[in-house]
Amino acid sequence: MSEGFVVAILGATGAVGTRLIQQLEQSTIPVKAVKLLASSRSAGKVLQFREQAVTVEEATPAAFDGVDLVLASAGGSVSKKFLPEAVKRGAVCVDNTSAFRMVPEIPLVVPEVNESALYQHQGIIANPNCSTIQMMVALEPIRQAVGLKQIIVSTYQAASGAGQSALNELYTEAQDFLDGKQMHADIFPTKGDQKHYPLAFNLLPQIDVLEDNLYSHEEWKMIHETKKIMLGDMDASDIKVTATCVRVPVPISHGESIWIDTGDPTATVDQLRQAIADAPGAVLQDDPAHQVYPQPVNATGTRDTYVGRIRPDLENPGAFNLWVVSDNLLKGAAWNTVQIAERLVADDLVHPVVPATK
Amino acid sequence: MSEGFVVAILGATGAVGTRLIQQLEQSTIPVKAVKLLASSRSAGKVLQFREQAVTVEEATPAAFDGVDLVLASAGGSVSKKFLPEAVKRGAVCVDNTSAFRMVPEIPLVVPEVNESALYQHQGIIANPNCSTIQMMVALEPIRQAVGLKQIIVSTYQAASGAGQSALNELYTEAQDFLDGKQMHADIFPTKGDQKHYPLAFNLLPQIDVLEDNLYSHEEWKMIHETKKIMLGDMDASDIKVTATCVRVPVPISHGESIWIDTGDPTATVDQLRQAIADAPGAVLQDDPAHQVYPQPVNATGTRDTYVGRIRPDLENPGAFNLWVVSDNLLKGAAWNTVQIAERLVADDLVHPVVPATK
Repeated sequence: MSEGFVVAILGATGAVGTRLIQQLEQSTIPVKAVKLLASSRSAGKVLQFREQAVTVEEATPAAFDGVDLVLASAGGSVSKKFLPEAVKRGAVCVDNTSAFRMVPEIPLVVPEVNESALYQHQGIIANPNCSTIQMMVALEPIRQAVGLKQIIVSTYQAASGAGQSALNELYTEAQDFLDGKQMHADIFPTKGDQKHYPLAFNLLPQIDVLEDNLYSHEEWKMIHETKKIMLGDMDASDIKVTATCVRVPVPISHGESIWIDTGDPTATVDQLRQAIADAPGAVLQDDPAHQVYPQPVNATGTRDTYVGRIRPDLENPGAFNLWVVSDNLLKGAAWNTVQIAERLVADDLVHPVVPATK
Repeated sequence: MSEGFVVAILGATGAVGTRLIQQLEQSTIPVKAVKLLASSRSAGKVLQFREQAVTVEEATPAAFDGVDLVLASAGGSVSKKFLPEAVKRGAVCVDNTSAFRMVPEIPLVVPEVNESALYQHQGIIANPNCSTIQMMVALEPIRQAVGLKQIIVSTYQAASGAGQSALNELYTEAQDFLDGKQMHADIFPTKGDQKHYPLAFNLLPQIDVLEDNLYSHEEWKMIHETKKIMLGDMDASDIKVTATCVRVPVPISHGESIWIDTGDPTATVDQLRQAIADAPGAVLQDDPAHQVYPQPVNATGTRDTYVGRIRPDLENPGAFNLWVVSDNLLKGAAWNTVQIAERLVADDLVHPVVPATK
């Protein structure tokens, strides 16, 4: 591996981090060397990259010396602290946290939708929220084929979206419930919030914190990230979006029930199906006569976004319901991040830049 | 118990049947005697009613001789077979199956919404589908207070909606999954359909059969029952309704993410909250600052419908999102059935009628 890039993975030991390693191993990116960075707590652990043992190092500014590409998924505060340092040292960073998503100058990218935004990057590219990404993969081809005026989405979000320890909590709670014991919650709905509730065999209509406008931060992200990705402006009004985000007792892969108004009263289910069938990253799973529709158990471990149950709203011409499932840790996180890095490499966009922020 | 009614429970041994017994025990109905009826398979079993042992009898036409009130929950075909026989013999029947819901002359009743329809009964009153009932309890007060023009609902429906054996399947699958074993499905998504998929740690966007119009029968029910209950006509167009129904790995209590357009652009969250707070059968659980919102674990075992997460659609004045949870076996089935029977008794409507059908 003498030619290629030095790639650092920040947050290498988490649920997304381990998948970043795996997706990078399987990617087309020529990797000269990999650096696995994490908190001091995880430093010293030995992980594998393409059959080589790699010791996890503590993330420090100096750890980014000589790094070409950073893939970050260690939390928003960690990204805020280290990514500007990495950019200063000449690296290009793809950040899978919410730290920079709403900075107007920073591209927020789903490659199937707005790859061209990568050309504006100033060192940092933001990876959208998991629940937004899969909705974009499903809806962009419909927007291109017939139009898109309004989105009303209800999510069914998997436990792993809150990290590996949250996923472990779901399993522990589930076993306790089946054993007739009291369930104990420390993490859900949201780590660090005042109250915690069990998720196993339950539903929690709170993902991330509830804000003063009555929306959860997750719902806010779906609304504004959609506008930024599709229209280039987080407050654009050409597409109206509203969202209700609910955590469900599923380990991996989010479901989304999406109602859309295409704005075209002549639009048909066949047009939408064809648009999905032709779309990159999307797979049509829509054969009601044979009970074929997207399910988390089938989506998990794959990079695609699955779309089915496409039906016309019988009383609103041009409006449709659909059901979308994707692996939140892959397309919703690690794969979309590595996919952005692949495009950066392919488009020759991995080079030192003047930092966007000090 | 010399004064009062002879009450028969048809389908006494199922998940809903056992709750019909419990709800009848706790009801205001003066019960002179109770008859527990089921298939020949369950005949001979001994159950309790108010500390009396009652032997389950096989359901036959003659078993309804002398019965005043029938509470039925043994499946649509059983109701179709026996309820006309019971009516012939002078009984009034409250039917918790889909057998008669769409017969125009047969009242479909949620007492909080359209109790007056009971006065038109001709021997049979239909209890609506579980997912419809809780939506009606939540939305009728809003309709009365500010109006209602459009409903878009996504459901998160509990396993017990498919019966006790389905609930057992969820638990068996969950234990197998936690033990690292293959999950095995015989019932979900729908008993008798061609294919079966595991529900534990998964999501199934199919409840009841998928029909030629691409909607599941459950979705069809939510659309047309809503119109019949609120507007008196299953095809009324004054309120537009569309639905996506999804089974989730929760044992008891359905969740619903509901978007509504009230048609009043000046409507406020406070108005909606007040309407719910004042409404019979509904409980407002909506305090985002203290993470208070409806959850299945809290609703289970109670008769009420819980409403929270009420938020304005920020781009559509007069439109709102809300989150509704209720015990599908109680308000969604056994309690609504017994509640109808209580109203029939209170309004002196339990008396022999000329049969509506031969």
